[in-house]
Amino acid sequence: MTLLADLLSTVFERRTRIGPILRRDPRSTDALIADLMGTTSETAALALARRVLQRYAEMDDASRLALFRHIAEAYDLDPAALRAALDAYEAAPSGASYRAFTHATEAPRQALIRQLNQVPGGTERLVQMRADLLRLGVDDPALQALDLDFRNLFRSWFNRGFLVLRPISWESPAHILEKIIAYEAVHTIQSWDDLRRRLQPADRRCFAFFHPAMPDEPLIFVEVALSRGTPGSIQALLAEDRTPGSAEVADTAVFYSISNCQPGLAGISFGNSLIKQVVSDLAAELPGLKTFVTLSPIPGLVRWLERQGIRYEPRDGKAMAGHAAHYLLNAKRADGQPVDPVARFHLGNGAMVQAVHAGADISENGLRQSGGVMVNYLYDLGKVEKYHDRYAELREVKAAQPVRALSTAREKSTGAGA
Amino acid sequence: MTLLADLLSTVFERRTRIGPILRRDPRSTDALIADLMGTTSETAALALARRVLQRYAEMDDASRLALFRHIAEAYDLDPAALRAALDAYEAAPSGASYRAFTHATEAPRQALIRQLNQVPGGTERLVQMRADLLRLGVDDPALQALDLDFRNLFRSWFNRGFLVLRPISWESPAHILEKIIAYEAVHTIQSWDDLRRRLQPADRRCFAFFHPAMPDEPLIFVEVALSRGTPGSIQALLAEDRTPGSAEVADTAVFYSISNCQPGLAGISFGNSLIKQVVSDLAAELPGLKTFVTLSPIPGLVRWLERQGIRYEPRDGKAMAGHAAHYLLNAKRADGQPVDPVARFHLGNGAMVQAVHAGADISENGLRQSGGVMVNYLYDLGKVEKYHDRYAELREVKAAQPVRALSTAREKSTGAGA
Amino acid sequence: MTLLADLLSTVFERRTRIGPILRRDPRSTDALIADLMGTTSETAALALARRVLQRYAEMDDASRLALFRHIAEAYDLDPAALRAALDAYEAAPSGASYRAFTHATEAPRQALIRQLNQVPGGTERLVQMRADLLRLGVDDPALQALDLDFRNLFRSWFNRGFLVLRPISWESPAHILEKIIAYEAVHTIQSWDDLRRRLQPADRRCFAFFHPAMPDEPLIFVEVALSRGTPGSIQALLAEDRTPGSAEVADTAVFYSISNCQPGLAGISFGNSLIKQVVSDLAAELPGLKTFVTLSPIPGLVRWLERQGIRYEPRDGKAMAGHAAHYLLNAKRADGQPVDPVARFHLGNGAMVQAVHAGADISENGLRQSGGVMVNYLYDLGKVEKYHDRYAELREVKAAQPVRALSTAREKSTGAGA
Amino acid sequence: MTLLADLLSTVFERRTRIGPILRRDPRSTDALIADLMGTTSETAALALARRVLQRYAEMDDASRLALFRHIAEAYDLDPAALRAALDAYEAAPSGASYRAFTHATEAPRQALIRQLNQVPGGTERLVQMRADLLRLGVDDPALQALDLDFRNLFRSWFNRGFLVLRPISWESPAHILEKIIAYEAVHTIQSWDDLRRRLQPADRRCFAFFHPAMPDEPLIFVEVALSRGTPGSIQALLAEDRTPGSAEVADTAVFYSISNCQPGLAGISFGNSLIKQVVSDLAAELPGLKTFVTLSPIPGLVRWLERQGIRYEPRDGKAMAGHAAHYLLNAKRADGQPVDPVARFHLGNGAMVQAVHAGADISENGLRQSGGVMVNYLYDLGKVEKYHDRYAELREVKAAQPVRALSTAREKSTGAGA
Repeated sequence: MTLLADLLSTVFERRTRIGPILRRDPRSTDALIADLMGTTSETAALALARRVLQRYAEMDDASRLALFRHIAEAYDLDPAALRAALDAYEAAPSGASYRAFTHATEAPRQALIRQLNQVPGGTERLVQMRADLLRLGVDDPALQALDLDFRNLFRSWFNRGFLVLRPISWESPAHILEKIIAYEAVHTIQSWDDLRRRLQPADRRCFAFFHPAMPDEPLIFVEVALSRGTPGSIQALLAEDRTPGSAEVADTAVFYSISNCQPGLAGISFGNSLIKQVVSDLAAELPGLKTFVTLSPIPGLVRWLERQGIRYEPRDGKAMAGHAAHYLLNAKRADGQPVDPVARFHLGNGAMVQAVHAGADISENGLRQSGGVMVNYLYDLGKVEKYHDRYAELREVKAAQPVRALSTAREKSTGAGA
Repeated sequence: MTLLADLLSTVFERRTRIGPILRRDPRSTDALIADLMGTTSETAALALARRVLQRYAEMDDASRLALFRHIAEAYDLDPAALRAALDAYEAAPSGASYRAFTHATEAPRQALIRQLNQVPGGTERLVQMRADLLRLGVDDPALQALDLDFRNLFRSWFNRGFLVLRPISWESPAHILEKIIAYEAVHTIQSWDDLRRRLQPADRRCFAFFHPAMPDEPLIFVEVALSRGTPGSIQALLAEDRTPGSAEVADTAVFYSISNCQPGLAGISFGNSLIKQVVSDLAAELPGLKTFVTLSPIPGLVRWLERQGIRYEPRDGKAMAGHAAHYLLNAKRADGQPVDPVARFHLGNGAMVQAVHAGADISENGLRQSGGVMVNYLYDLGKVEKYHDRYAELREVKAAQPVRALSTAREKSTGAGA
Repeated sequence: MTLLADLLSTVFERRTRIGPILRRDPRSTDALIADLMGTTSETAALALARRVLQRYAEMDDASRLALFRHIAEAYDLDPAALRAALDAYEAAPSGASYRAFTHATEAPRQALIRQLNQVPGGTERLVQMRADLLRLGVDDPALQALDLDFRNLFRSWFNRGFLVLRPISWESPAHILEKIIAYEAVHTIQSWDDLRRRLQPADRRCFAFFHPAMPDEPLIFVEVALSRGTPGSIQALLAEDRTPGSAEVADTAVFYSISNCQPGLAGISFGNSLIKQVVSDLAAELPGLKTFVTLSPIPGLVRWLERQGIRYEPRDGKAMAGHAAHYLLNAKRADGQPVDPVARFHLGNGAMVQAVHAGADISENGLRQSGGVMVNYLYDLGKVEKYHDRYAELREVKAAQPVRALSTAREKSTGAGA
Repeated sequence: MTLLADLLSTVFERRTRIGPILRRDPRSTDALIADLMGTTSETAALALARRVLQRYAEMDDASRLALFRHIAEAYDLDPAALRAALDAYEAAPSGASYRAFTHATEAPRQALIRQLNQVPGGTERLVQMRADLLRLGVDDPALQALDLDFRNLFRSWFNRGFLVLRPISWESPAHILEKIIAYEAVHTIQSWDDLRRRLQPADRRCFAFFHPAMPDEPLIFVEVALSRGTPGSIQALLAEDRTPGSAEVADTAVFYSISNCQPGLAGISFGNSLIKQVVSDLAAELPGLKTFVTLSPIPGLVRWLERQGIRYEPRDGKAMAGHAAHYLLNAKRADGQPVDPVARFHLGNGAMVQAVHAGADISENGLRQSGGVMVNYLYDLGKVEKYHDRYAELREVKAAQPVRALSTAREKSTGAGA
C-alpha cells in the first residue's frame, strides 16, 4: 500500500502490539512505577511502562483503587519545590529558570501518565484507566487531583485539531459498528437490522469523531435523518416500514441522537465541534439542505413536573407541549442556565428552541422521562455565534415565537411562572 | 473507501482547508489574539484562530519577531495568581482548588498556542512558527520562555505513542520524496536518480516517523543499507555502478544517514526511538539480519585535531584511524561526555564504538570534517540498555577491542592522552 | 488518498453510477438493442447500453425470458457467413482474412454482451442477468447457446489472473459480511453473533475471492478453523462455548465450509484455486501448520444407501463409518467418478480421503443427507498434482489405509461391493 | 487494512510474485508449452505457465521470434474440425453442439494465451509479449493471425468497464510518475521539475486509465491545463515562469497532450473514452468550466505541404494558418478521412476544428512537423454524438466559421483546392 494508507494502518496494527505476554517480573507494580520514574533510558522506560500497563490490565477493582491512591499520594506535587522555582524565575527570568519552573509545576503523576502513553496503544489503555478511576473513586477527594491530571493531559492529546470526523455507514467495519450499537445512548439500537435501517438508506447518515491513536474507538457519534420538513416523532422517523427518501430532495437534516462513547473522556467535550462540522460537511455535500435541527429528548421534564407538584397527562398533547415549552424557557438552575441538561448543551452551542412536539417519543423511556414530548433545537449557522454569546453572557434562551406562545399560554392557564 | 483509510485521508485533506481566503478583518493581529483569548465561544475561537494563523502566514520576519515579543510579554505567567492558587490548594486540597492551581500554572501564551492548534492543519503551522522563533529570536532571553511553552506542548503532542513509523520507498508519493531529498543532511541526495538508487534496490530501505496531524511532513528519517558484513566506505556503499544484493542473504543492516526534518521540533528527540523501532521491524522482517550498525561521520574530528595542534594526513590511513579512535574514546567535554555530537547521540542510545575506517568518506565534506574517517556504532539489542545505563551513570564509552587497541597504540606513538 | 487506494475506490464508486434515472425513451427494448448493435459511436453505444440495462432491471420474469429468446434468435450466429470467411481465410491466410474469420465466429449476441459490459457496473448486472437466464430458461434448448456465450465471456473476464484473494474478518465492512451470512451454503450462519464466532477468534479464518469489477460481491469463500489435530465433529468445532485457541500453536488448518456466491457464475470454477491459494498463504503466515484438511459433508450418502436398499442406523457409528468409506471409495457414476459431488470436487483437485467420522454432523440436515457422517479430505501439497493426474487419467481414488480398511470390513460384513 | 484497500494492494503485490526463481527444468520451452496445452491439472498448468513466462523473459529477440513462429503454426486453427463442428451444430443445434462449435472456433494458441494469463502478473507479461511481437514480426504475415489472437483477448480483458480513471498528481507514487515522464510522447517532459510544473499547480491536471491487473502501468494519460479562454501557444502554456491561476476561476479545460503508454495494446483504443470521462469528471468538479478543447499538433502538415510542392514560411503566421486550415479541412485520404492522424482521432470522437494558431509550437519538433501551427479541437458535449455520426457516415468535418474562412481565403489566394 501507500504511505498514507499505511500510516493509518500502522496506527491501527499497533494497538495489538501492546499485548505480547511479558515474562514475569518479581517487582511489585509500585516498584515498577518507581523504577519507571527513575530511569533515564528510553528503552528501559518503554519496557517498564508496558509492564505497568499489563499489570494494571490484570488487576481487580480493589487493586486498581489502591494503585490510584498510591499514585495520587506518592507522585503528588511538591509545593515547596514549586515555590522555590517560581521565586528563582521571578528573580532571574531566563530560559533555564523558566524551564525549571515549568518542570516544578507538573505533578510527577502527570509525568507518569505521559510515560505510560509512550507505549504503542497506551492512549486507549489510559482512557480506560481514567474510566475506572471515575467509576471507583468518584467521591474520593484524594483522587480528584489525579483525575484532573488525566483530564488535563487528555484535553491536550484530544484537542480538536487532532480529531478526525468520519462517516459511519453500512460499509464500515463490523467491529466499529458493534461499538455504535453498544454506545448508542439515546434511542437504543435493538439489532444489526435496526442498525442497518439507521445507516443504509439514502436519507440516513451517521458521523463519528476518531483520534488517530485510537482508530478502533469512536469518541462520539451523531445519527442524522435527512427529510423534507422537520419531523416531530422519533417513532415515525425510525419506523421499520417507512419508505426511505432521497438525499437530494431533502431540505432538512435532523440530528436525532448524539452519544458519547468513552466514559474515560468525561469532561472533554466533543459534541459542539461534532455538530458544527457535520452541519458544515452536509451543507457542502447536499446544497438542498437549508435547515439543521435536532429532534431531542427533554430528559428532565417529568422529574421537574413532579418536583413542582404539577399533574400531567401524556395523552393531553396540548398541555404537555405547554409544560415542555414552559420548562425549557423558564426552569433554571441557580447559575441561570436551564435545568434540562440537553437544553444546556444545545443552547450553549448557540442553538435555539425551534418547536416542541407532544407524543413525539412514546417509548417507555420517552414517556417516563418527558411524558412523550420532544424538542427541535435549530442550528442556524448565521446566528449560532451571536446566540452563543447572548446565552453565555446573559443566559438568554432563544426560542421561536410559537414556543414562546405555548409557554405564555401555559403560564396563563396555570397562573404560574416557574 | 473504508473507515480507516478515510480516517487518514481526512487528516490529510484537512491540511488544505486552512487556506480558504478569509475576508479582511479591520482588527489588528494583537486585537484578534486578545479577542481569541477572551471569547467563550468555540466557534468564534476557531474563526479567530484561523485568522491569526493567516495573518501570521502573511507577515515578514520583523513583524513575526514583534508578534513573538508581544505574545511573550502580554500573555506571560502571573506569579501572584499562581502563588495564591498554590496557597489555596495547600490550605484545602480538593478537585476544585487543584484545578484552579493547574490553571494558574499555565502561562496564557500556552493557552493561546493550544487555541491555534484547534484549527485543522494548525499543528504544522505552529511547528513552522517555532522554527521562525528559533531562527529569529534564538538569542533573545525574553523569548526563551515562549519557546519553552512551544516545546512543552510539542513534547506532549508529539509523544512517542502518537508517532507512526513508515517505510519510504520508490513507491511513496513524490511530494514526500522531494522532502526526503531536501532534508537529507548527512550525505546529500543529488537528484531524483540518486534518490532512486537509495530507495529502489532490494538491499536498500528508508524509514521515517510521521505524526498523524502532519501526514505530509516526515519528522525524521533513516536510510539503511542491507549487506553481508559491515561496510567501511560510504562511497562504495552509494556507488552508482554497484550491483544491488538481495535482502534475504544480508546479515547486516547499516544505518548510514539519519536526518531530522523539522527545525521547529528542535529539542524533541526522535532518533533513539526511530533506530530502535527500525531495528526491531527489520529483525522481524528479515531473520537473517544479525548485526545492526551505523556508518557514521565523525564531524568534530578535524576541528579537534586542529585545536589540539595535531598534524594529520588523510592519506595516512593508519594514523587517521588512530586519531579517530583516540578522539572518540578520550576527547571529552566538561560533563564527561564525548566532544563529538554524533558519538554522544549513539553512545547515549546504548550503542558501542565497533570500528573506525580511514578513507571511508573521501567527499569534500568528509575530508574537511573528519579527514575521511568514519565509524561504525553497533546496536546490540541485548546490551543497549546496559550500555545506556553505564554511559548515563558513569560516562563509560564501550568500544570493541580493536578500536581500543588503535587508540592505545596512537597514544603510545604520540606519547599523549587527550 | 493515493493512486492505488483510489484506483480501487473508484472501481467501487462506479457501481453506484449506473443508477441515475434516465429519461424515458419511446423505443422498445428490442429497438434499443438493435440501435446499440448498429451504432459506431462509442458515446451512443454507452448511452444505449445503460438504457438496456435499466430496462432489464425493471422487467418482470416473463419479459426477461422473452428478451432472452429474442436475443438468442435475433443475434444468432450466421453459419453461411462463417463458412465464407473460413473459406476465404484458408484460400488466402492473412491478417485481414483471419480478422474477418474471427469476427464471423462470434455470434452477435456475444458482441451485445460485451457492449453491455462497457457500462461501469455492467459486469455485476450481467452476472445477475445470467443468474436469471439459468433460473428461467434452464430447460430451454434455444437458450443454451446464449448461456454458453455468457459463460465463455465470463470465463475470460473472471480468469484466475484477475481474481483477488482477501481475508474476511470481523473488521470487514458490514455490507460484505451480510453477504457472507446470506451465501453460506454448508453450515448456515444463524446470526451476526454466529458470524462473529466464525471470524473473530484467533483460531478462525475466512477468505474470499473477489473480482475488481465487482468489489462488493464475494465470488466464493472458505471458512477455516485452526486446531491441534484434525477435528471430527462440526458441532464441536462451531460450539458457542468453546475456548478459542492460539493460531501460533495450531498444526492443522481445517476447511469446514466452501460456498459459491454467484449463481450467475455457475460453471466457472473457483474452488480449486481458492483452496490452493489459501493453503499457500496460511502456510506462509503460520509455519506451524503442517496439515491442510477439510471437514466435509457427504451429501449423497443417505440417498445412495436408500437407493441401494441398505438399511442404516445413524446411532451405529461403526456401521455408518463403514457405509461412508465404502460409498466414497466404490460408489461410482458411469464415467468412473464418484457419485458424491463433494468427493468429485476434492478428489478432482488432487486431495485424498483421509478419515471418516460418524456422528460428526448431528444437525437435522447432516443426519438427513449423510446419517451424521463427515469426511476429511487431505490436501498434501507435495502430492496433489500426482493424485490429480491419477484421478484424471485412471479415476484412482486415494484414501488413507484406515478408510480403506473400513470399506473392506464393511464389504465383508455385508458380502457386497457397490 | 480493510477489505477494499487490501483488494487492490493484493493485486498490486502479486505482480512481484511471478518472479521467484524456478528450478531449472530440462524440457525445452516448446515442450513446456506442449505439456501446458496437454494437462488437465490446474495446478500443473499454473506451474507450467509460470515456467513458460520465465523462459520467455530470459530469451533474446531471435529466440522470441522463433517462439512466436512456433506458436503461430503449431497451435493454429483446425479448419476441418471447425467445419465439422459447424455442420453438427447446424444439423442439431443444442447446448452441447454449440459448445463444441465455440471450442473449435478458437485457435489453440488463443487458449495458450489464456493459460499464461492465469499466472498472477501474467497480463503485464503478455502485453509486453505482444509489444515484442509487433516490434519483431510486424511484417510477417504468418504472425498476423497470432497478433490478432492477442488483440482479441486484450480487447476482452481491457474492455471499458474494467478500466479505472485516476488523477495523477504530485502526490502520486514516484514509480508511476517516472512512467509518465517516460511515456509522454507529445511534449517531452525534461525533468522531475518539469513534471512538477505540469502536476502541482492548481490550474493543472493529469488523468490516466489503469487496469486492475496492471496497477503499476498507466495505459494512457492526458495532461490538462485550466485557463480563462483558449490558449494558442504551447510554449506559453508550459512556460517555467508563468503564474499559476486558480482552478475555480477557469472557464476552459485544455487537453494539451495525450499519450498511449503500452505498445502491446496497439489497436485497442482508450483515447476517446479517456477524454469523454475526463470532460465529465472535470465538469462535475468545476462547474465554472464551460469549454473543453485540445491544443493539438498537426503532425502531417509540413510533409503534406512538401508533397504538394507548396512553399511555406513558418514566420508568415497568416499564410501558415491558412495552410493549416486548408489542410485540416481538405487534405483527405482515399477513404475520405483527413490525412492528418490527430485530426482523424478527434473528429472521429465527435470534436470539431475550433481554431488554428500559427507560431503556437516553436519547438524544433513543432516547426519541423507543422511549421509551428497548432489547432484546437472543441469537444462540445451536447454535439459530439451528432458530429460523430456525421463524420462516421458522411466524412463531414465540422469547423468553426473563422477556420473555414481561413481555408477559403487560402484557396482563393493560391487558386487551389487540395
